[in-house]
Amino acid sequence: MSDYQPSQPVAAVILAAGKGTRMKSDLPKVLHPIAGRPMIRHLLATVEALEPARIVVVTGREGEAVAKAVAPHATALQDPPLGTGHAVMAALPALDGFDQGTVLTLAGGDPFVSEATLRAMLAKREAGAAVVVVGFRPADPARYGRLVTDTAGGLERIVEFAEASPKERAISLCNGGYMAIDAALLRTLLGAIGNDNAKGEYYLTDIIAAARARGHACAVVECPETEVMGIDTRMDLAAAEKIAQQALRRRAMENGATLADPDSVHLCWDTKLGRDVTIGPFCVFGPGVEVADRVEIRAFSHLEGARVESGAVVGPYARLRPGAVIGPDAHVGNFVEVKNASLGKGAKANHLTYLGDASVGAGSNIGAGTITCNYDGFAKHRTEIGEGVFIGSNSALVAPVSVGDGAMVAAGSTITKDVPADALSVARGKQTDLAGAAKRFRDKRKK
Amino acid sequence: MSDYQPSQPVAAVILAAGKGTRMKSDLPKVLHPIAGRPMIRHLLATVEALEPARIVVVTGREGEAVAKAVAPHATALQDPPLGTGHAVMAALPALDGFDQGTVLTLAGGDPFVSEATLRAMLAKREAGAAVVVVGFRPADPARYGRLVTDTAGGLERIVEFAEASPKERAISLCNGGYMAIDAALLRTLLGAIGNDNAKGEYYLTDIIAAARARGHACAVVECPETEVMGIDTRMDLAAAEKIAQQALRRRAMENGATLADPDSVHLCWDTKLGRDVTIGPFCVFGPGVEVADRVEIRAFSHLEGARVESGAVVGPYARLRPGAVIGPDAHVGNFVEVKNASLGKGAKANHLTYLGDASVGAGSNIGAGTITCNYDGFAKHRTEIGEGVFIGSNSALVAPVSVGDGAMVAAGSTITKDVPADALSVARGKQTDLAGAAKRFRDKRKK
Amino acid sequence: MSDYQPSQPVAAVILAAGKGTRMKSDLPKVLHPIAGRPMIRHLLATVEALEPARIVVVTGREGEAVAKAVAPHATALQDPPLGTGHAVMAALPALDGFDQGTVLTLAGGDPFVSEATLRAMLAKREAGAAVVVVGFRPADPARYGRLVTDTAGGLERIVEFAEASPKERAISLCNGGYMAIDAALLRTLLGAIGNDNAKGEYYLTDIIAAARARGHACAVVECPETEVMGIDTRMDLAAAEKIAQQALRRRAMENGATLADPDSVHLCWDTKLGRDVTIGPFCVFGPGVEVADRVEIRAFSHLEGARVESGAVVGPYARLRPGAVIGPDAHVGNFVEVKNASLGKGAKANHLTYLGDASVGAGSNIGAGTITCNYDGFAKHRTEIGEGVFIGSNSALVAPVSVGDGAMVAAGSTITKDVPADALSVARGKQTDLAGAAKRFRDKRKK
Repeated sequence: MSDYQPSQPVAAVILAAGKGTRMKSDLPKVLHPIAGRPMIRHLLATVEALEPARIVVVTGREGEAVAKAVAPHATALQDPPLGTGHAVMAALPALDGFDQGTVLTLAGGDPFVSEATLRAMLAKREAGAAVVVVGFRPADPARYGRLVTDTAGGLERIVEFAEASPKERAISLCNGGYMAIDAALLRTLLGAIGNDNAKGEYYLTDIIAAARARGHACAVVECPETEVMGIDTRMDLAAAEKIAQQALRRRAMENGATLADPDSVHLCWDTKLGRDVTIGPFCVFGPGVEVADRVEIRAFSHLEGARVESGAVVGPYARLRPGAVIGPDAHVGNFVEVKNASLGKGAKANHLTYLGDASVGAGSNIGAGTITCNYDGFAKHRTEIGEGVFIGSNSALVAPVSVGDGAMVAAGSTITKDVPADALSVARGKQTDLAGAAKRFRDKRKK
Repeated sequence: MSDYQPSQPVAAVILAAGKGTRMKSDLPKVLHPIAGRPMIRHLLATVEALEPARIVVVTGREGEAVAKAVAPHATALQDPPLGTGHAVMAALPALDGFDQGTVLTLAGGDPFVSEATLRAMLAKREAGAAVVVVGFRPADPARYGRLVTDTAGGLERIVEFAEASPKERAISLCNGGYMAIDAALLRTLLGAIGNDNAKGEYYLTDIIAAARARGHACAVVECPETEVMGIDTRMDLAAAEKIAQQALRRRAMENGATLADPDSVHLCWDTKLGRDVTIGPFCVFGPGVEVADRVEIRAFSHLEGARVESGAVVGPYARLRPGAVIGPDAHVGNFVEVKNASLGKGAKANHLTYLGDASVGAGSNIGAGTITCNYDGFAKHRTEIGEGVFIGSNSALVAPVSVGDGAMVAAGSTITKDVPADALSVARGKQTDLAGAAKRFRDKRKK
Repeated sequence: MSDYQPSQPVAAVILAAGKGTRMKSDLPKVLHPIAGRPMIRHLLATVEALEPARIVVVTGREGEAVAKAVAPHATALQDPPLGTGHAVMAALPALDGFDQGTVLTLAGGDPFVSEATLRAMLAKREAGAAVVVVGFRPADPARYGRLVTDTAGGLERIVEFAEASPKERAISLCNGGYMAIDAALLRTLLGAIGNDNAKGEYYLTDIIAAARARGHACAVVECPETEVMGIDTRMDLAAAEKIAQQALRRRAMENGATLADPDSVHLCWDTKLGRDVTIGPFCVFGPGVEVADRVEIRAFSHLEGARVESGAVVGPYARLRPGAVIGPDAHVGNFVEVKNASLGKGAKANHLTYLGDASVGAGSNIGAGTITCNYDGFAKHRTEIGEGVFIGSNSALVAPVSVGDGAMVAAGSTITKDVPADALSVARGKQTDLAGAAKRFRDKRKK
């Protein structure tokens, strides 16, 4: 793995104008998510690690959504799309004044390039190659372009499969598509690319011939096949998701989390799991989740934007939504939803409960079937529950409302007014038993 | 893939009399479901696509359940079961008068034969072969019967593995079991099959020798191994389910649905998914589900007999049961069950709710913990909720009951009478706070 | 598979003093669970089947938790840990007086050794070998020690990979680690092991050289690679869990259960499933579950310590906790939790219900959203529901309380007093409709 530090500035051009028609989607291809974020953001995170002077994302006609997703990076419009060479030409205005160093050209739909590979490319570029191309050796190379190298390992040319001779087809080194190009030569070399071909497009691969024709050396950096994985269909997307998940699961296990069935735990790119965290089967983590040490996340739990503190137990069937903060040793049990709400140390909400826009103090117990009524049809209001409170089962707490420290709410109550500390609040109907009435009802219905 | 149109009529005999003892089940083997329907119905659907003149299902002693499942197709009783040849003999009365064209013989426990293979068999049959047998080349052919062909590719004979010479055992082409037989010869050839063997059974494979002995040509059609997959154990059943699911998932993705984790989405043979539908991990679709474009089905959702209209959001942890209709842009959230109930455009039922035998008008909001009380112990009744209604949390609506347009129900209410439009209905107990009573209770209990 | 019955007594020494630092856990490695019980208990169960005279578990500094988990078996302290030979030396006091027969030495972190392999080792030991070592032939043997055998198949020596000659490295038979040692020679042979090596540790493998030097024969028993699988990381643990699950799933299917998606059903080592049980996708079984014939466990169900009787239907999304007993033909539906509670024959609790510390009589119907309020903040109390009872939806039953046979509870009631048989009990507020009030509220809020 290369950790080369480039000595010259770097710019990156990311091609994201393709329509991705095989995705059959109204969402631009590069915005389809992998592990909880748009695929292009995975690529951007890798590129950002190089601290490039500029990043330019080339978008197509309906590029507003892409531009928003890649902000604050610059975008350039390629319309109509006339090939990869044309896409880089479209980025030239945004590269104005950048004429020393290296321009990386990458594909927005290939999210798995590694920082190490990019650094290796920069190393070879700075060592004298005008253009460095990424190569890989696929199990089945048939449909890829081949990289023809000279005896010294330099890149002679890229030959498309269709135009390759039998001898060239026998080459196992294939074109991965990414390039590192000498910024000082970029405009000249692009200017030499023509569109005299069947589709009338400008192919960036022609830049090799242009460089060689001008006496410049070109080079290859090899990378694993995964790194050049391109996503063109929903099947590709699912395959990419799997690769990303496997890496995240492995990292979680290496850090000391137990995943009883790793394949059934779906993590997010930013999920943070502590040591001795145990995660049951069938759990889903959305963005923004932090789980501290010794937490147990039981089966069928779903967490997004939540923080779970040490020793807490969550699930099974718990849903933590953004703003949920589960305190140390607190319990959130089955069929419980927590949204924008906090549970203090050791607090419990174990069954069939909705806690929304609420705070629950340390040691309080929320009975089964409790609902915080946070919405009145127009706005959300807060429910404040103190410490050591006991909320009886099947209660409704109509926000805004507070329940003081040490107070109790009787089961089945609908609480609309603040309950003072240490008070017992009852708000339910009186029980009347009509002797024999059930029997009479049955007898009547059975007729 | 063959799309041959037979010029002569076709009949199909499906052998389904086997007890399937290795399934260890009281359910006849051919009725065990794959992708939501009995395995024999998969086979029937394929056969029906040929528009055969007759389909006869041969059942065994306890064949009533099978007869019911294959209706309106004819059945014939084979009792006792004396081999595959005997099974086809049992079907002869039901084929009375069918003596021109082709009789296909298929196995009810082999659900994956393809229409293309059947058409290829019919083509060869009509091209002159008296009998066409399906062959396949398994990775490990050891235990299968071998198909001995002549130099012209005609089928000479089927040899059981036990009786095969070393040279015959080296043949990779194995007997898949299905046949296409000249209807005009069927009775004659069956008549020539004896039961002079260890088990005293009549083997349909002997029909080849009978045909050849009478100077008729026989032929082979090859198919992929999957198509001759037979199901004899629950492990086989699970493997078949996996194959069926993978095909369904692939089709869904090709049509423009995102399945974040395809292996964890269980579809049904008739599931219809639109474009830009996204399905989270761990979702189960039972029969009769239609999901329109741009719908989001979140993790842990379970749908059966439901229609979800465009832009709606379902789940996580939503259960839609038969008769659920989720309108455009409507939301059904976590721990919500919808049965025989409709939500209008933009309506919401987001938390811990049961909607049964109900209609909810456009734009209405059903608070957390709402229950429609549709059952009185004897019959089901309906709850009609108008447009723009607000049902406060933890309410019970005792059907039959209606809530008019624009009405509101206060949280914690039990509604037993119709609520007029625009009215605010309150049906709950009054709150009483007993100062210090919680503290006194605690002090007493702590002693 | 060996079913050899040893004629001499057997003792087992289980090495469990390793810190398991690569697990990154505060829990001792051998206590991490596989299929619902600590991994060392899997090994103990296998060893116990041999009915050994003694079992000694060698633990390290923080061995209390291990000692507790392996009780009533003896433990011996190894502190500091100075190698595998040293560990067996630490067990010698606990083997005092055991000097005839065989001592098996096993590793607590290798849970998958089979009884058959142990019996085969005992057979070879009693046939005259002083020491029998387990060997296996891994796909990739590179890093393992090699077993050097003589022409008669006897074991000459164990050579560490680092010290192996090219010829020795070509040996495919590797050291699996377990041994069967002649008890009469154990002390002598251990006494001959030195610690003159880089780490200054005592290696049990040196016992072979010691035995051979004294003229004793040694032997090898081969086993499948799975049986010597050692667990050192959370990834190993996940892989072991998968192996254990696959065996349990297979056994369940062979016994006549349908697992629609076996890979998504998580069983426990002691799960008992009857015939014609069907289990949907995404189900989790904790310890102590018994499921009788013809039960349907639907998707997303979670069972622990529960008994489900024949013909019952559970789920989807049902959670049965310890003490749940679901009677014949009873139904437990979605978002229902049952804890320490029984449902009689044909009883139903189908939606959004919590039944804790309760009994429900035969034929009773528990409406949606029913909660048994079993906890008052200090103790748990019971709810007794008779036969043929109808509990209206969204009711709360405040325990201790009973509802007599044939009684009805009106929807939305909070029941605090016992309900007599056949009575109809109502305990809810009265409905008041404020005409136009909802509209006025809206108009005001919209301003």
